[in-house]
Amino acid sequence: MMWIQKQLQLQARPRGFHLVTREILEGVPEMHDMGTGMMQVFLLHTSASLTLNENASPDVRRDFESYFNKAVPENEPYFEHTLEGPDDMPAHLKSSLMGVSLMLPVQKGRPVLGTWQGIYLCEHRDYGGSRRICVTAWGERAT
Amino acid sequence: MMWIQKQLQLQARPRGFHLVTREILEGVPEMHDMGTGMMQVFLLHTSASLTLNENASPDVRRDFESYFNKAVPENEPYFEHTLEGPDDMPAHLKSSLMGVSLMLPVQKGRPVLGTWQGIYLCEHRDYGGSRRICVTAWGERAT
Amino acid sequence: MMWIQKQLQLQARPRGFHLVTREILEGVPEMHDMGTGMMQVFLLHTSASLTLNENASPDVRRDFESYFNKAVPENEPYFEHTLEGPDDMPAHLKSSLMGVSLMLPVQKGRPVLGTWQGIYLCEHRDYGGSRRICVTAWGERAT
Repeated sequence: MMWIQKQLQLQARPRGFHLVTREILEGVPEMHDMGTGMMQVFLLHTSASLTLNENASPDVRRDFESYFNKAVPENEPYFEHTLEGPDDMPAHLKSSLMGVSLMLPVQKGRPVLGTWQGIYLCEHRDYGGSRRICVTAWGERAT
Repeated sequence: MMWIQKQLQLQARPRGFHLVTREILEGVPEMHDMGTGMMQVFLLHTSASLTLNENASPDVRRDFESYFNKAVPENEPYFEHTLEGPDDMPAHLKSSLMGVSLMLPVQKGRPVLGTWQGIYLCEHRDYGGSRRICVTAWGERAT
Repeated sequence: MMWIQKQLQLQARPRGFHLVTREILEGVPEMHDMGTGMMQVFLLHTSASLTLNENASPDVRRDFESYFNKAVPENEPYFEHTLEGPDDMPAHLKSSLMGVSLMLPVQKGRPVLGTWQGIYLCEHRDYGGSRRICVTAWGERAT
């Protein structure tokens, strides 16, 4: 049984949905020693989120941004939490709609993903800055 | 410590929300040897999802389909990703709203579920075909 | 390798979003013996949910209640599942939008959380009563 747990700082990205699969996996080269296992990617923030979705067409990621801006509008008249700007409360809501944790099965040192599955960092703030994640992996050592 | 990891092919289902608890558990009879542990059910697709919800009334599952069709409409004028048909982009969005991973505690070879909790396969495409899942379980061997 | 798995009864709370981080962690003092690991908090219900979000301002939690009541309205004309009252079907839908499972990395006996991250119990029923959770933790024993 082996455990890996480390925190990584993702590079800052503009508001929107961004493919970060490669950046995350390159941050945990220790995974190569694992056979069967699991890994979690956990975001330590409340105004961004992580999700799995289509890794090929950039238009999918643009449509995500458009849809979520419509589904969770800024400046709703009933919002009380408005001190940090119009993008703040919608960012909290979007974060909970998609969540901050991804669980991925691991086989032969790599996450088991469908052909079209990639990891999105969903940056919901106008200026969110660099985001911190904690990657944990546990499993059998590769033979 | 024991690990189980296997991929299963779920039977094709029409667009809608479907109870698949039994089909999944019958696919991993090895679970009977586990005492305390965890299991993950992971869907390897970006246009369907998995969720836990009410396992008794079929009308709940029909209301899920109606609600999500209204909350994530087809043919939104701002959608750019439209090549694969009107059900494609909404399917991606619904997939991320509910997610493709379920984590279930395990006790005595069975998932610990509330009385009314069942596993839904949420098929968001008109013709999604058979869906592939990866089931991983890890825990103490039953004594 | 150590495992903890126990069920806890959360105190009953009114409809709304409630910070329950402390109540949950006080329920699993056994966690102090763990070094690197993982924990899951799993809710055994289909009309409430768990999410991570901002732990400081009560107005964020009020805005969550306002937003979700608007995004998932009661008395939709197409709802078929209406026998248990107008808050029932929206509660099921909200439960699946946020989910009933939280996965948290563990280090030195405590969940690894961002500065502003707290655990919300999202009570979607008018009279949901006391809610049952199952907490599972697994990891290396602290040295």
